[in-house]
Amino acid sequence: MADVYAARRERLRERCAAGGSAAALVSRPANVRYLTGAAPRDAVLLLDGDGEDLLVCGSPPSAQPDEGRLDENLRTHLLPGRAGDPAAAAGALAASRGADSLAVEEHHLTVARHRALGSVAPRLRLSDIGGAVEQLRVVKDEQEISCLRTGAEITDQALGELLESILVGRTERHLALELERRLVDHGADGPAFATSVATGPNAGRRDHRPSDRRVEEGDFLSVRLGAVYHGYRCEIGRTFVIGSSPADWQIELYDLVFAAQRAGRQALVPGAACRDVDRAARQVLDSAGYAPALPPLTGHGVGLEIDEEPQLAPSAMGKLDACVPVTVEPGVHLPGRGGVRIDDTLVVRPEADGGPELLTITTKELLAL
Amino acid sequence: MADVYAARRERLRERCAAGGSAAALVSRPANVRYLTGAAPRDAVLLLDGDGEDLLVCGSPPSAQPDEGRLDENLRTHLLPGRAGDPAAAAGALAASRGADSLAVEEHHLTVARHRALGSVAPRLRLSDIGGAVEQLRVVKDEQEISCLRTGAEITDQALGELLESILVGRTERHLALELERRLVDHGADGPAFATSVATGPNAGRRDHRPSDRRVEEGDFLSVRLGAVYHGYRCEIGRTFVIGSSPADWQIELYDLVFAAQRAGRQALVPGAACRDVDRAARQVLDSAGYAPALPPLTGHGVGLEIDEEPQLAPSAMGKLDACVPVTVEPGVHLPGRGGVRIDDTLVVRPEADGGPELLTITTKELLAL
Repeated sequence: MADVYAARRERLRERCAAGGSAAALVSRPANVRYLTGAAPRDAVLLLDGDGEDLLVCGSPPSAQPDEGRLDENLRTHLLPGRAGDPAAAAGALAASRGADSLAVEEHHLTVARHRALGSVAPRLRLSDIGGAVEQLRVVKDEQEISCLRTGAEITDQALGELLESILVGRTERHLALELERRLVDHGADGPAFATSVATGPNAGRRDHRPSDRRVEEGDFLSVRLGAVYHGYRCEIGRTFVIGSSPADWQIELYDLVFAAQRAGRQALVPGAACRDVDRAARQVLDSAGYAPALPPLTGHGVGLEIDEEPQLAPSAMGKLDACVPVTVEPGVHLPGRGGVRIDDTLVVRPEADGGPELLTITTKELLAL
Repeated sequence: MADVYAARRERLRERCAAGGSAAALVSRPANVRYLTGAAPRDAVLLLDGDGEDLLVCGSPPSAQPDEGRLDENLRTHLLPGRAGDPAAAAGALAASRGADSLAVEEHHLTVARHRALGSVAPRLRLSDIGGAVEQLRVVKDEQEISCLRTGAEITDQALGELLESILVGRTERHLALELERRLVDHGADGPAFATSVATGPNAGRRDHRPSDRRVEEGDFLSVRLGAVYHGYRCEIGRTFVIGSSPADWQIELYDLVFAAQRAGRQALVPGAACRDVDRAARQVLDSAGYAPALPPLTGHGVGLEIDEEPQLAPSAMGKLDACVPVTVEPGVHLPGRGGVRIDDTLVVRPEADGGPELLTITTKELLAL
């Protein structure tokens, strides 16, 4: 495992060198974890031109479950006390090692920390590394995909068990908590994001926060959950009907969203433009007259964070590569009535390998519970 | 309630005016919530010199439970799509309203957003508002303290129920999850921070993450949890012994930490220097020879965030005021053996009002479970 992190840092080092900076400071937690396997609170990584990297942190990485993974090329520099600013400390270390320039993550570092860094190391020329690490993170290796796959299995299990229980009369909040408990029961590190359970008029809203509303006969029930497994986050979303017979409008809306979601999934091929995948799903809903009810995106990358590059959205740039895990999650919400979301995590794979690999395999038939 | 938020913004407006800036941009989520009662994701508050304030956000605040609280002096400005940068948009709005300077939260705003703000509004002079809002938040009103009090009651209930159940053989992770479920059962919005359950050699470590270790006879068991109630976060920590008779070293260590925690609590009077409160608790442990095992702080403020100003630490500046809620949480951890933490949330009150108000009332006797 240790080699993996050293190799990732080596790729970043090459990018930095190409960008004219010998040293780099990585501060965004998911990026630090990607490059070191460790993520003590507030830790930053100082990437040196010569390959002697430092994890600068206020608390020892040994408090982390990942402790064993720190590799030989990576030393830990522990700050005294917890009040220290690891970014400024790393800047001072870079200067003391003779660096004359340092690329920082301007999209993560605060103005105050950037200024502090500048004043402890005034001769260091600070530049912007931009989203270089995020870009490295887009295409996953098989080890990463395997973590996502296990997380998806856990998520399917948790959801499957919930569907076997009595739902009518229980609140959204309790159902969400039970799902999160089941995720951990099955081996998740925790929930990948705040589990959303939405009933009746709330159903189909992507970011609905569970309320005290109880499940009623005739409701749409939409859930969105995911496990974290070894740091990797996946996502599933399903919509059900409560009661024995769905209403006609529920069946129609469900079939429509299902068709849109299928179109999106089928568009997932290496080389496809992200906006074309979005359009494939979106135009199904669009042509049925739901344009104003549509969300700004119909999918996104997942990995160490739940919302990563790429975005599947009308204005998205770029193309999909093989081994990129994404969600496909179109939905329609009708104010006052509720709605439908269907959400899967898949990995883009070439046609020759069988096409997109579906990680979340819970049925997408409309279940009446 | 709406008046409360308008009054808070008025106080901030006065501070900004005194600092030479007519307009301010508040971006830190807890600060936005404190000043508006609302906290849509990524929202920023544009505080105008003339009292026409704007909540600039990508998603409507109506998706929040706080929706009813937006007051008349506060308008909402919704950005199209979810990709917009509310900080830059607020800067452009400030400039279009004729502002020539804008104070921003440099300790929260990233370098990239600060730069984007500068380029959409190049004639706006950007200054630093520093921790002005955090300072306003230190002293709580009775409404805020009432939320903390309810949260502490919920926390005591959740902990009390756990103590009545069988503990031996259960894992730290399961106990932590059960505590979090009970918090929500009793009406919490959620856990105030990741619940820590630590057994045996892990006991007494402040930030221990629950593992798969099971509770055993003879263990120390330390737990640290807290409820969020209406956004306000409290904290309790207790240490127990598993089995009928604690060992002598366990009793001695417990009595020592208890004495230190009591000394800290008794030092909580309006006007006391924060470092003196820390010293009161710390010197009890220190004089027993535990100096190297001591944490960098023995307490901190709580409120909309779990770790707020003031800090109770050796290097802390400043004095305590009445109506400041703080934790007092000394602890000792002996590597390989475990340790003890005792943690309460209290509100500083004058002697005439009965002295510090203890919010977390679970017993601090050493219970053998």
